[in-house]
Amino acid sequence: MSPYTAGKLLASIATPADVRQLKEEQLPQLADELRQFIIDVVSEKGGHFGASLGVVELTIAIHYIFNTPEDQLVWDVGHQAYGHKILTGRRDLFHTNRIYKGLSGFPKRSESPYDTFGVGHSSTSIGGALGMAVANRLRQKTDTKHVAVIGDGAMTAGMAFEALNHAGVENADLLVVLNDNCMSIDPNVGALKEYLTDITTSHTFNKVRDEVWNLLGKISKFGPNAQEIAKKIEIAVKSVLLKQSNLFESLNFRYFGPIDGHDVVHVAKVMRDLKDIPGPKILHCLTKKGKGYAPAENGSPTKWHAPGLFDKTTGQIIPSAKDTPQPPKFQDVFGDSIIELALENEKIIGITPAMPTGSSLKRMMDEMPDRAFDVGIAEQHAVTFSAGLATQGMIPFCNIYSSFMQRAYDQVIHDVALQNLSVVFCLDRAGVAGADGPTHHGAYDLAYMRCIPNMIVASPMDEPELRNLMFTAQQDGMGPFSIRYPRGQGSTIHWQTPFEKIEVGTGRIIREGKDVAILTIGPIGTKAVQACANLAAQGIEAAHFDMRFVKPLDEKLLHVILQKFKHVITVEDGCLMGGMGSAVIEFMSDHGYQTQIKRLGIPDRFIEHGSQDELYTECFYNTEAIVQTALAMLGQETKSKTTASASV
Amino acid sequence: MSPYTAGKLLASIATPADVRQLKEEQLPQLADELRQFIIDVVSEKGGHFGASLGVVELTIAIHYIFNTPEDQLVWDVGHQAYGHKILTGRRDLFHTNRIYKGLSGFPKRSESPYDTFGVGHSSTSIGGALGMAVANRLRQKTDTKHVAVIGDGAMTAGMAFEALNHAGVENADLLVVLNDNCMSIDPNVGALKEYLTDITTSHTFNKVRDEVWNLLGKISKFGPNAQEIAKKIEIAVKSVLLKQSNLFESLNFRYFGPIDGHDVVHVAKVMRDLKDIPGPKILHCLTKKGKGYAPAENGSPTKWHAPGLFDKTTGQIIPSAKDTPQPPKFQDVFGDSIIELALENEKIIGITPAMPTGSSLKRMMDEMPDRAFDVGIAEQHAVTFSAGLATQGMIPFCNIYSSFMQRAYDQVIHDVALQNLSVVFCLDRAGVAGADGPTHHGAYDLAYMRCIPNMIVASPMDEPELRNLMFTAQQDGMGPFSIRYPRGQGSTIHWQTPFEKIEVGTGRIIREGKDVAILTIGPIGTKAVQACANLAAQGIEAAHFDMRFVKPLDEKLLHVILQKFKHVITVEDGCLMGGMGSAVIEFMSDHGYQTQIKRLGIPDRFIEHGSQDELYTECFYNTEAIVQTALAMLGQETKSKTTASASV
Repeated sequence: MSPYTAGKLLASIATPADVRQLKEEQLPQLADELRQFIIDVVSEKGGHFGASLGVVELTIAIHYIFNTPEDQLVWDVGHQAYGHKILTGRRDLFHTNRIYKGLSGFPKRSESPYDTFGVGHSSTSIGGALGMAVANRLRQKTDTKHVAVIGDGAMTAGMAFEALNHAGVENADLLVVLNDNCMSIDPNVGALKEYLTDITTSHTFNKVRDEVWNLLGKISKFGPNAQEIAKKIEIAVKSVLLKQSNLFESLNFRYFGPIDGHDVVHVAKVMRDLKDIPGPKILHCLTKKGKGYAPAENGSPTKWHAPGLFDKTTGQIIPSAKDTPQPPKFQDVFGDSIIELALENEKIIGITPAMPTGSSLKRMMDEMPDRAFDVGIAEQHAVTFSAGLATQGMIPFCNIYSSFMQRAYDQVIHDVALQNLSVVFCLDRAGVAGADGPTHHGAYDLAYMRCIPNMIVASPMDEPELRNLMFTAQQDGMGPFSIRYPRGQGSTIHWQTPFEKIEVGTGRIIREGKDVAILTIGPIGTKAVQACANLAAQGIEAAHFDMRFVKPLDEKLLHVILQKFKHVITVEDGCLMGGMGSAVIEFMSDHGYQTQIKRLGIPDRFIEHGSQDELYTECFYNTEAIVQTALAMLGQETKSKTTASASV
Repeated sequence: MSPYTAGKLLASIATPADVRQLKEEQLPQLADELRQFIIDVVSEKGGHFGASLGVVELTIAIHYIFNTPEDQLVWDVGHQAYGHKILTGRRDLFHTNRIYKGLSGFPKRSESPYDTFGVGHSSTSIGGALGMAVANRLRQKTDTKHVAVIGDGAMTAGMAFEALNHAGVENADLLVVLNDNCMSIDPNVGALKEYLTDITTSHTFNKVRDEVWNLLGKISKFGPNAQEIAKKIEIAVKSVLLKQSNLFESLNFRYFGPIDGHDVVHVAKVMRDLKDIPGPKILHCLTKKGKGYAPAENGSPTKWHAPGLFDKTTGQIIPSAKDTPQPPKFQDVFGDSIIELALENEKIIGITPAMPTGSSLKRMMDEMPDRAFDVGIAEQHAVTFSAGLATQGMIPFCNIYSSFMQRAYDQVIHDVALQNLSVVFCLDRAGVAGADGPTHHGAYDLAYMRCIPNMIVASPMDEPELRNLMFTAQQDGMGPFSIRYPRGQGSTIHWQTPFEKIEVGTGRIIREGKDVAILTIGPIGTKAVQACANLAAQGIEAAHFDMRFVKPLDEKLLHVILQKFKHVITVEDGCLMGGMGSAVIEFMSDHGYQTQIKRLGIPDRFIEHGSQDELYTECFYNTEAIVQTALAMLGQETKSKTTASASV
């Protein structure tokens, strides 16, 4: 049972079938109670907030009108689906949201039949729902309806456009609900946003159409001649207005709206009407992030996107700051250091695809607005735009989360690396990302970046190293340079050290030793620091090397290590297949080394959500895992020596 | 010097500066001569054809009006840039086009300052040119103009839309020339294409606008009342028509056209006018693929996209068929086998992003039009659409060239693999792709697919194996399954063997031996067959294993091999970093094997164009390379034995 109490009406809802038993006039009360439940839980447990409050009415209306889960409902991105989870049998578990072994923060097929399509990354809903619609057309399941709910921010991504373009020529049952709040996580940017604003202001398409038609009716009073002319005008205007004047109609979608997305009764009525209209159609709903909770509604939507814990009565966000000085987040080290560098080097440009706050590039956007760009949810474009900048001698720092960089993989290869252009890729949220779970873990970048020719693949162990890698990357003639770092805090309180150039392809010694060598990449190296200390307490002298570069490898250092040590452990916060450890054993193989080596990192399966430490432990590359691995390797040695002695 | 003679005017053109010396009325003659030169060379040397003929006038007009190479001209895809190459100092080398060590078939920065942006994959031009425009705005190079030439097919890709969305809010100098021929390689599909056709038919936006304005003028004769009404209508209609009625205007681009793209004088005039209009603008040009060469103009544009050699007088394409029966192309084995499978299994669906001919899915589209989909140049959507289909129990075969699959990497991970959905990825053009060069080599797929959890990674050595892998992949409950195969012919004449299920994760023995084990993946295995024969002739008994699966590896087989052999060679038509050989050494490392191993495959650099055999040789994984590697390994053994004996 949930420790949280639901309102009376909400308490009666086990599944959406119960929602469908309600009278229309009860829906507003259900909306109030659902909203309150979300506020109650999220204020104490954390999670995404503003987005779910904004779609409370849409959520209820959809489940009220459509026959879920037979009808297929696809949420885009999915952090707005809390209300959906609560209405679809997960109210009692909702307080475990985003907690290790608890509910996922996103829709997830394995969690519920109501979650038809797993999401996390944006802009997949139209394509996914179209696939479902085409499948059900082929299976003659003509009663099945398909609804994709997508935000205006997600609509800017190319794959949403690709799906619209295809859907426009498939006669498949598809309703796209455009949840337009002028926001993704940060305020939405781009021409499409301005367009959506245009068509929702007073001079809307619909109003103009109505106005023209009214006027034409009046003209007809002026006699037969005028009537004839009016008719011609009407035909002309109609043909243009109806066929071409709306961007979505241009793509063969029937366009409806905009309507108030918070009038749940009206939304339900409109959806009922639309339900039986065949083919692709779009319903434009205007909503407000944080709706119904005054501090969020009136405050910064970015702040209230995922505010952390807060006092639900006062709206005071509970500061997570501790008494003692804390190391900074890596993203802030990036955000501050790029400004320092850009002040000295006028070639430097900052680029983010819709993550100015999450990447901390916002600081540069505020201080140097002409040199920092938010290009919208458009990772592909972010990279190719960077390539274009680089052809003119600029040095773009293109900051994209590791898992989102998967969206721009071809552009990294084809537009940047192949042309050997000096673009610096800053891959934030590399390694396990924590509560966001498998869609957001940056597990693969070392593997997928390493195989690209010309690409330098680096990761700093701490904040000063991140600064130094950034400093190094912006030197002239560096070529493509990727720097990965994880979500969250680093380990250095006094991090604002002077910039120092790092020789590309050089690691560094963190601790001397003789029994076993531990090779790490990135901040996971701090676990090795602790492991070395623990091992030392047991009389084992472990050496620790921070590789810094996965490519080019520090071959000189590796020769030294492999000649000296009989046991090597590699540790990385990334997938084992093809990652840093793999690079080391490729080197060993190429040079005929037969040192015993154990590779620690993310195994070959998808890792669920949890805190980073919980996941390091689960994946066996935390401090204890390193210690155990070292002991096991050395124990084997001891054992085999003993056995050898015994057998002599 | 070129063995081909240029017309008199063309012969006088060393660089575009010479074009700009011509009088306007000379441009049509230059167009004729340029077209003839392309016909002369391509008919005898091969290459892309229809696209370049279609843009002869656009090419001349752009270089005539814009101050290239200071003004930045970006071609999209680039196979239409032959005229551009000929006019920009490469006429004498043009007969080496696409030949090993000759000119690239695409624009390439290292080849000429006129090639501002390397291309090959589609839809990069707007983003690249926007980056240049923003850079030059920042550098106060306000005289520099930026032109992107993009086809209507390329416009359907998401990244083109992302770039339009961004460009619409940047006040940067950018002219997008929309080269609208209703074609990419195959006929263009999707709602955008229908829209472009709409606005170019008689009821165009422009015509309707003019008509309405004319009529409104007439109405004003009917007195003051009517005038007032007419004014209101005019304002209303204007505001809608001008601001919102055109898709590109919706995105803040100024839209001009459509104009006849083959009237070179008119195109030049329009471009001169547009040159000084600030901000983002689009010029819609109507062209015809193959224009000016009757057989191409009247024949199938798909056939004349890259027709091979032909008799330029008769238009007869010279058949490449040989006297003896030939093995089929892998793509045709796919194209025929999917129909056979789909006849038996109604869940099977075929999907291609704009490559129906290249993938041979066209056969299924013709025979089962409701079950085979061309979704346009939209790799991302192709994969997510497949995921949607799979959620409803369908088994989509999503056929995407290996290098194009890079465009859908996130969708493969996030929408398919994470949800463990049964989508079969058929990666055509895997390995070195030949004359298309580095943009098209499928070098990385084994590495980038292998690191994805749940993904089966397979490659057939020959045609029957491709059939059997396809048969295996469509069995219920298989999950994500990728099958890679190269461009071109296989090795089996009687290939239409009965389907047989292959146990996932099992390799097979091709040849027994004892001195060295050769492990191969895919059709490159035929080189090992020959190598084994050559080695046998020298008294060396090499064993040959066709691994078939890179993931899961055949661990049982590997244990046998690694216990038996002291020397192992792996051979793959893919990158060495993270590829099949890397998987094998990961296995060795995990199990403590210390066998000597040499990995052959694509080294860590971009490989230029050439025939596949030329590139196998260059990259050192052809037959001779395998033989030499085996001899060297065994020679070392012999040598070390000798040394050992000597030292005793």
